[in-house]
Amino acid sequence: MLVCRKIREIREFVRAERKNGKTIGFVPTMGYLHHGHQMLMREAKKECDVVVISIFVNPMQFGPNEDLDRYPRDFEKDHALAEEVGVDAVFYPPVEEMYPSGYTTYVDLNSLTDCLCGKSRPGHFRGVATVVTKLFNIVLPDKAFFGQKDAQQVLIIRRMAEDLNMPLEVVTVPIVREADGLAMSSRNVYLTPEQRSKAVILHKSLEAAAKAVEEGERDAQKIVCLVREMISSIPGALIDYVELRKYSDLSPADSMDGPSLLALAVRFGQTRLIDNTVLEV
Amino acid sequence: MLVCRKIREIREFVRAERKNGKTIGFVPTMGYLHHGHQMLMREAKKECDVVVISIFVNPMQFGPNEDLDRYPRDFEKDHALAEEVGVDAVFYPPVEEMYPSGYTTYVDLNSLTDCLCGKSRPGHFRGVATVVTKLFNIVLPDKAFFGQKDAQQVLIIRRMAEDLNMPLEVVTVPIVREADGLAMSSRNVYLTPEQRSKAVILHKSLEAAAKAVEEGERDAQKIVCLVREMISSIPGALIDYVELRKYSDLSPADSMDGPSLLALAVRFGQTRLIDNTVLEV
Repeated sequence: MLVCRKIREIREFVRAERKNGKTIGFVPTMGYLHHGHQMLMREAKKECDVVVISIFVNPMQFGPNEDLDRYPRDFEKDHALAEEVGVDAVFYPPVEEMYPSGYTTYVDLNSLTDCLCGKSRPGHFRGVATVVTKLFNIVLPDKAFFGQKDAQQVLIIRRMAEDLNMPLEVVTVPIVREADGLAMSSRNVYLTPEQRSKAVILHKSLEAAAKAVEEGERDAQKIVCLVREMISSIPGALIDYVELRKYSDLSPADSMDGPSLLALAVRFGQTRLIDNTVLEV
Repeated sequence: MLVCRKIREIREFVRAERKNGKTIGFVPTMGYLHHGHQMLMREAKKECDVVVISIFVNPMQFGPNEDLDRYPRDFEKDHALAEEVGVDAVFYPPVEEMYPSGYTTYVDLNSLTDCLCGKSRPGHFRGVATVVTKLFNIVLPDKAFFGQKDAQQVLIIRRMAEDLNMPLEVVTVPIVREADGLAMSSRNVYLTPEQRSKAVILHKSLEAAAKAVEEGERDAQKIVCLVREMISSIPGALIDYVELRKYSDLSPADSMDGPSLLALAVRFGQTRLIDNTVLEV
């Protein structure tokens, strides 16, 4: 498995593979890989000849009071996990390779970015859209793979890729969960054992909401309240948001007349976790 | 010469040419072509195997009170002029092909865009950066050619291409002028015969400034005043801006300690013309 610190190096690798007629699958990550990331890589491996991943904790998508500095990093473990699933190359650039002095360009969206996580994290999705544009231009993949856990991120990247006519396909891969239902996340490592066991409420409340919808509930407010009440009953769980929105464009969904995204963010101490489910009617 | 109204069509054309090992040169235009555009196409023809141009009057780069609706258009003449210099394909999309319903993404820069023309035309360079990003992703050229007449635009596109790691080379082509020195522009057609003869002052004043610098003048304010006085002496010439800025990053240049951009915009009635020269010391 090739590891490239330089843009020039990964470009050369991809160019050579493409010259040999190979298709390129790409999985952008911030590292501290887990089984969720591995699922993305496996999917890429299934659909493409060559798999490239990037490991880059992107400063542009962190707010001034967020966890950029303490974001978990473990390149050796990441290397092993990527190698395990047959990744061909890892692009692992230092910050100055991605944002050299004088850097000034960004990509942003007029909609989709201001609600849900975008409301709690102003500028976050601008940072995501910008770095993903850069990574796409560097790797030039045929397909790029993103996890449904970051549902809003996937919608934004799909929209951006379509709007800017990026020559690639965006593939969404389902959420991978721990045995007890907690969505896998690099940030789970922050949780104390007590918080860790409490955090299962995120998934449980989403399941309860899905069950209510299955049984005929269509009132958005009631569905949201059901989730909020379950989470609020857990001491130490602080709700950032629980929202039901139209899955197509994230506009507010008062009642469910199409696929809806039920998404939530909850803090346990300093740690902010997200989860979601798409409710079909 | 192929004319494509659809993104899919021009992509197929380029893909086939590239498969045959051809390099692609690209000249984005807003149409109403003149010898300046033809110079860009000739340069592209010289440096690349296949030349694609686009003709698209981009609504996103016009302000609400600007000349979008009356911007001159003449596709038949454009077709003839492009054919004359051996262009291989013209991408000529309708607006809804470029900005379908729900479109929401843009590319912008934190610097370079707020001064000079960006000050007079808020949002203009965001529109330019966005449409050029889209066109680059559609055509996927090896090299893209831009005229030095829009000096700020070229700096912005170079910076954007570098910042976003776009896999292409930006080539700048010198200003092409009429016999009397007026920089060629699609907007020159707006001028009355009287305005047309007065407009030569733009070039004359830049030449006078260049001569002053040659003769040792280094004081930015004096150079700017010289130009302003010459233009102000022409009845009906209304200065939008005359500025001397560092050519590297468009920061204000009090004195000339490196290449400087002397740029101006002047209105004759409703018509706004721009011109510039790079002063080396």
